[in-house]
This record gives sequence, C-alpha cells and structure tokens, in this order.
Amino acid sequence: MAIVEVTVIPLGTGNTSLSSFVAGCLGILEKSKGIQFQLTPMGTIIEGELEQVMNLVQQMHEQPFAAGADRVNTIIRIDDRRDKKSTMEGKVASVEEKLIKPGGTD
Amino acid sequence: MAIVEVTVIPLGTGNTSLSSFVAGCLGILEKSKGIQFQLTPMGTIIEGELEQVMNLVQQMHEQPFAAGADRVNTIIRIDDRRDKKSTMEGKVASVEEKLIKPGGTD
Amino acid sequence: MAIVEVTVIPLGTGNTSLSSFVAGCLGILEKSKGIQFQLTPMGTIIEGELEQVMNLVQQMHEQPFAAGADRVNTIIRIDDRRDKKSTMEGKVASVEEKLIKPGGTD
Amino acid sequence: MAIVEVTVIPLGTGNTSLSSFVAGCLGILEKSKGIQFQLTPMGTIIEGELEQVMNLVQQMHEQPFAAGADRVNTIIRIDDRRDKKSTMEGKVASVEEKLIKPGGTD
Repeated sequence: MAIVEVTVIPLGTGNTSLSSFVAGCLGILEKSKGIQFQLTPMGTIIEGELEQVMNLVQQMHEQPFAAGADRVNTIIRIDDRRDKKSTMEGKVASVEEKLIKPGGTD
Repeated sequence: MAIVEVTVIPLGTGNTSLSSFVAGCLGILEKSKGIQFQLTPMGTIIEGELEQVMNLVQQMHEQPFAAGADRVNTIIRIDDRRDKKSTMEGKVASVEEKLIKPGGTD
Repeated sequence: MAIVEVTVIPLGTGNTSLSSFVAGCLGILEKSKGIQFQLTPMGTIIEGELEQVMNLVQQMHEQPFAAGADRVNTIIRIDDRRDKKSTMEGKVASVEEKLIKPGGTD
Repeated sequence: MAIVEVTVIPLGTGNTSLSSFVAGCLGILEKSKGIQFQLTPMGTIIEGELEQVMNLVQQMHEQPFAAGADRVNTIIRIDDRRDKKSTMEGKVASVEEKLIKPGGTD
C-alpha cells in the first residue's frame, strides 16, 4: 500500500480555471474499487496498491487530452513505506497526536 | 493571496518515521496570524499573502535542522491566481460542484 | 513522446549521502533502449514514449527497497505535449534562442 | 549553500509554448551575482546561499504576471545539506563515479 499525490495541470487552455479538468480526473477515481482518495486544494491523494494507483494516475493524466488540451503537466509524489502499514488517516493522526502532546518534537 | 503546499523531508535521520518533524513545522504555523492552513497526508497547505507564506515556509525548512537533521529536502508548490480571489475552500468546492452536476467536463 | 523528471529519495537510511541509490536507479536506464536520459543535480530527466518511461520510473522507485531502504519518496513530473514533437534538447534550445535575441519575452 | 530547482508555469495563457516566459525568468538569474545556475529541460537549478536563492525564486515567480499571465504555478525543490559542502557539479560527479566503478550500489 502506497500513498500517492497527483496534480494534473493542462497548459495553454486559454482559461485560468481548471476545476472542470480536475472533476474529470476525479471521475476516474470514483469508478475505481480498492482505493481511497481525497481531494485537496492542491491535488488528489490516493491510497492503494502501488501498481493500481499508478495505473489510475496515468488514466488521470490522459483525461485533459480527451477534453481538448494539447499539453499536460502532471506531478506525482509517491510515499511508499514498507516497514509498517501506512494510511492517509494514520499519517495525519500521527502528526496531530504529537501536536496535542508537545515535547515529542523538539 | 496564494495557496502554497509545502512538504519538508529530513534525510539520513536513521528513522523512517518523520511525524515528529512535521509536528515541529506545524508549530510554526499555529503561532502565525493572517494565514489558514491544513495538514494533509502528503504535506501542509497554506493560504495567505504570498510573501508571508514564503517566509513561514522558510522557517519550516529550518525546523528539522534545529531538531538535529543534517540534510533537508523541501518541496514547495505555489498556486497564485490574480484574476479572482482563490481560497483553499473555494478550490475544492468548485471541483465538487462539477462532480455533482456532470456534463461540464466530459 | 513525453519528457519526465524523476527523483527517488530513500528515507530513514541513516546516511545523508544518497548517490549510491541514484547510481542504482541510473543502472536501470542504461540498460533500456528507445529512451534518452540525462542526470541533473536534482534528478533524472527521461525522454521517450510515456508508457515505457512510466514503467522505468516504477522500476527506479523499487531500486532503493532492493538496496535495503524501508521507505521511499519518489517525485515524478511529466511534461507531455501533443501539438508538436517536444524533446529535451529542443526545449532548452527554444529558451536559449530567446535569451540571445531579447525582446521575445517581455 | 543550497541547491534549488524551480519551475515556473503560467496557466491559461492560450498558448502551449512557454519558452518566452522561461527566458524572462532566466534574465533575472543572469543579472545576479553569487549564484550558479543551469537550465534543464524541466526547470532551472540554482546553487547559492539559501536566502538569496529563495529571493530570486520569488522574483522568477512574479515574471509571468509582469508578462501578462493571470495565474502562475511555481514548483520549488530545495536540497539543503549542512554536514558537508554540496554543489551542483559535485552531486552529479558523485553519482557518475559510482556508475563507472560498479559495486558500490548493489
């Protein structure tokens, strides 16, 4: 299981708004089983088996071309931890726990 | 107002867990006025006046050094839109609206 | 043909030097036909057919695990332009040409 | 001394070609003393004192707005190593050395 953030950016579209492209990309994830995902203001974070997630990410990258774009920049960040199970929820909880009980960090 | 995602990664720490470093970085944001921020499983997203946010990001980058790290990789993504006011909440809402009413994208 | 930058970062290795991991990743590219690549101080840039490049990138991501790492962060940026052929060499040349003959930009 | 990669991406320009914007950003670096930089097919890599480099990066981010863009996405990656002096040239040389004498990695 890996956690992957993806941001798909169509270029040269002539419109500063990109939300309809992002919605198209999310449509791909909504149809997929075996993954969790969350939309953030800067991209989409997906949790699942790495090979499946990377396959979905490549489908998301194709989406703006299908919607008319001629150039797409896609940024992918993989966080893959294999010494223990890592989840989107667990990662955030682990940080928040240390904020509530200060002293752990400094 | 810009929206900025930052991920601070200490290297060579000998420990695969980084949550205490992340908590230290968030401590800097909690003390700051005039910004909004949210923790995600892949980083921290900050909304505010660009110069102030970049100043905070540079303080966050220093945090792992203060906590003992010798090498830090920091990834920053700025989304800066000046033709209309853009907010973290507004960006997500704009995509979700298009998901509820399909047709805009495909 | 797409141009893809990849940076593979093993975490928690206990050593701030990562060059041996990078060399291992490059070994994968040196054995591959049909692609061009160049090493930069911040990653590796690969030019080739997108599906093949993404397959190689995923092999590169596995390399530090094979070499003993327990957590790997990999950053991938795809620049995919389909209205004209784009190459690593052509992109740099296009910018340099505009530097020599100023006026094009402003 | 830190090594910083920056990619400045104007959005909604109506033109898939971005090289004139990139040339404008490089003009800022060409006038600056105390830094080294190199253009790659995926961005610009700058070596220098971190505070100075981040100041230049923020000037580069402003450049497309001055040239007419209404939205700019800028990606910045800082590699900051403080246990030994790290240079752009030294990082690449360190990897290449391990490629010539295999055995170090695997």
